[in-house]
Amino acid sequence: MVESPQIKQEFRQVSVIGLGLIGGSIAAGIKQQGLASSVSAWDANAASLALGHDLGVIDSIAADIHEATAQADLIILAVPVQSMEQVLRDIDLKDQVITDVGSVKGIAVEAARRVFGKLPENFIPGHPIAGSEKHGVVAADPNLFRQHKVILTPEEASNPAAIARVEKLWRGLGADVVRMSVSHHDDVLAQTSHLPHLLAYALVDTLSAGGDSLEVFEYAAGGFRDFSRIAASDPIMWSDIFQANREPLVQALDQYLLKLETLKQLIESGEADQIKDLLSRAKVARDHFSNIQAIARSKSGPD
Amino acid sequence: MVESPQIKQEFRQVSVIGLGLIGGSIAAGIKQQGLASSVSAWDANAASLALGHDLGVIDSIAADIHEATAQADLIILAVPVQSMEQVLRDIDLKDQVITDVGSVKGIAVEAARRVFGKLPENFIPGHPIAGSEKHGVVAADPNLFRQHKVILTPEEASNPAAIARVEKLWRGLGADVVRMSVSHHDDVLAQTSHLPHLLAYALVDTLSAGGDSLEVFEYAAGGFRDFSRIAASDPIMWSDIFQANREPLVQALDQYLLKLETLKQLIESGEADQIKDLLSRAKVARDHFSNIQAIARSKSGPD
Repeated sequence: MVESPQIKQEFRQVSVIGLGLIGGSIAAGIKQQGLASSVSAWDANAASLALGHDLGVIDSIAADIHEATAQADLIILAVPVQSMEQVLRDIDLKDQVITDVGSVKGIAVEAARRVFGKLPENFIPGHPIAGSEKHGVVAADPNLFRQHKVILTPEEASNPAAIARVEKLWRGLGADVVRMSVSHHDDVLAQTSHLPHLLAYALVDTLSAGGDSLEVFEYAAGGFRDFSRIAASDPIMWSDIFQANREPLVQALDQYLLKLETLKQLIESGEADQIKDLLSRAKVARDHFSNIQAIARSKSGPD
Repeated sequence: MVESPQIKQEFRQVSVIGLGLIGGSIAAGIKQQGLASSVSAWDANAASLALGHDLGVIDSIAADIHEATAQADLIILAVPVQSMEQVLRDIDLKDQVITDVGSVKGIAVEAARRVFGKLPENFIPGHPIAGSEKHGVVAADPNLFRQHKVILTPEEASNPAAIARVEKLWRGLGADVVRMSVSHHDDVLAQTSHLPHLLAYALVDTLSAGGDSLEVFEYAAGGFRDFSRIAASDPIMWSDIFQANREPLVQALDQYLLKLETLKQLIESGEADQIKDLLSRAKVARDHFSNIQAIARSKSGPD
């Protein structure tokens, strides 16, 4: 009995605002790893809270955001990007450590500035690069973040102690934590996540708008299937993300449109060698990406 | 002993020209199902032929295309689309039934017209909508075509008996055979297969051309992974397909470029409702596609 279980607990009371797949998975992971004395939650949807409580994902249900945040030492905002500002207005801000999980960091920081005049020094914006095609707290998975990257975007004025605590949370959930600036995060994610989703939605919409829309899908083979899977994602969430990251996304889209125009001209003018060069270069880059992923997987062994 | 095994054999000698993944899988399927007395093959790569023979995928190796085709009653052309014309020139054309597996049917028919003056009445162009990320005869899979569609594009003047025999081949391999015109095939495949591949190659090339190309791939999440998988396909083969199906592909690409411009303008002008409508419509179409695939799978039970 040298060590009581309490000593391992990094947090006293964690409050999760927004109990969907991500919020629920964080709550479930915290409980699985014993990272907090108790996990409370609030969500606009009372049924999600009741379900989360029944599933044992959370310990208690808060009546509102104010009650959820007043007693917490760690607040996790897992709400849609467009709801961030309203949620921040209802927080009972003291010296709690706050983090969020939004896919766009610029809009989260701007929301905080509008509400508090500046980004509070204990608010450390974050973004776990993890997800699932499933939705809601019913799909909560305590292992969702294992071997996945979490990007934190603290500012110069951020409290180092708060950064350290948020890093401990994510490491405790098995994630690999990295830091970068807000603008760099939003540029990188525009290219690697937001643009591919936009392209997939646009492709499915283009094909289904043809005269024989049903027939086209009957002959769609593997290439299209891989491509279209991400167009099954939540349209409301992705519409919000496209709006929230407008400038970096449009910039990435413009680069892509240039590339498509180049390829189109090469095909129209029958430049076989140049087409082969471009495709071969893309394959090399893609194989490099696969290798990075394989190395990342092999590095993070079981724990 | 009412029935000798010979009676089930639809073909006497099948010759496969081009022993890669597709040619090898057809040969392996014919042998598995006992559809022919013997399967011979020719390939420009002698190592592929030796390997195919060692693996038992084929019974014999032909010295050249003329020898391979002279004694055959069914010839299967499984060569790259750009090699079709040269291969057709070397065939010892009698009354054999001929079919091919090319991804573009227009160029195959044009090649036959250049070589023979018209599409021979026993040449029934075909295209199995099946493939794999693997390459070569070493990956030959007798079950590759099971529950997959095969599109045949015979002409008015095609010999009904030849069509029937090619249909028996594919049904014997477990495929679902449909017929359509050459131009309709090439339009549909431009949209459902060739365009998605072009988009994937272009995306990977756009991202890897950025200043921090290595870094971008480190943060690439699920969306990009699904998207980029098809950019790992053979660049030579796909460059050939893009050239061979130039007009329908450029037409499909133009439709897609219009859609991207529309989406870009909606994002730039903050038309949230219209973006949500477009994304929701795409999700409905995509879910419809998933349902078609699920129904197709449930229809084709084991046999």
